Amino acid sequence: MEIDAQRRRGKFWDAIEGRAPMPPAAALLGWELVAIDPDQGTIEVAFEAGEQFLNPVGVVQGGFLAAMLDDTLGPALVATLPEDQFAPTLDLHVQFLRPARPGRIVGHGRIVQRGRDVCYLAGELIGPDGKTVAVATATALIQTVRSG
Amino acid sequence: MEIDAQRRRGKFWDAIEGRAPMPPAAALLGWELVAIDPDQGTIEVAFEAGEQFLNPVGVVQGGFLAAMLDDTLGPALVATLPEDQFAPTLDLHVQFLRPARPGRIVGHGRIVQRGRDVCYLAGELIGPDGKTVAVATATALIQTVRSG
Repeated sequence: MEIDAQRRRGKFWDAIEGRAPMPPAAALLGWELVAIDPDQGTIEVAFEAGEQFLNPVGVVQGGFLAAMLDDTLGPALVATLPEDQFAPTLDLHVQFLRPARPGRIVGHGRIVQRGRDVCYLAGELIGPDGKTVAVATATALIQTVRSG
Repeated sequence: MEIDAQRRRGKFWDAIEGRAPMPPAAALLGWELVAIDPDQGTIEVAFEAGEQFLNPVGVVQGGFLAAMLDDTLGPALVATLPEDQFAPTLDLHVQFLRPARPGRIVGHGRIVQRGRDVCYLAGELIGPDGKTVAVATATALIQTVRSG
């Protein structure tokens, strides 16, 4: 996780380094940074899938796995952006491989291809038992904040 | 919402009719049934997108919209199943059309095609201002619970 201070700026790094609170959605998911390599465009994060995410059959509702994947793939890109850019997700495709039990879920995200504007992202979630529970791809669009 | 009592059985209807608690994931999303037509395979539900779902730029994190869509499309099918069947989602594709502000979000779900096992589902979410914020398609597989 060797990233020089110049690149550790903006909302993402402010939250990671404690200069700003964690965004509510990330806090709700128990989001935690495990490892990051902005040069490779890869990230490893972890989530805490609590009882509140369970569906009627007692496994994590697929939608919350989708939320975790969104918060895995997005940060792989966002961590590499300068302070005046952000990158909304245009679409997200999730395949649910097997039921996910509650507990610690690890997310691996990566930039598949980075264009000037359009970026293709991919990743997967590993359940508490070490098995892959879901995979996803996403498209994101880099946008620059225009200051008035 | 004219559905005879014989069809109002199983986990889905137990939660709707207060015979069982709402599943945690649905409760967390503020899930509420607005209207349902199992013969048409359509459902209208509503969610309460609270502050806890917001991302760093103050709009609902896309992943939680995905969670809401999963909990819109799934119930369109689940409401039509007999008590001994359930239908896990195999995949979910979400397109994010515009940012969603916090507030009441309405979901419309429908069965596009129902096979003996495989079902194709679609739907969309309408934000507090009446504009469509996200659309989705999903594939679900009907499974029968085998009693030992």
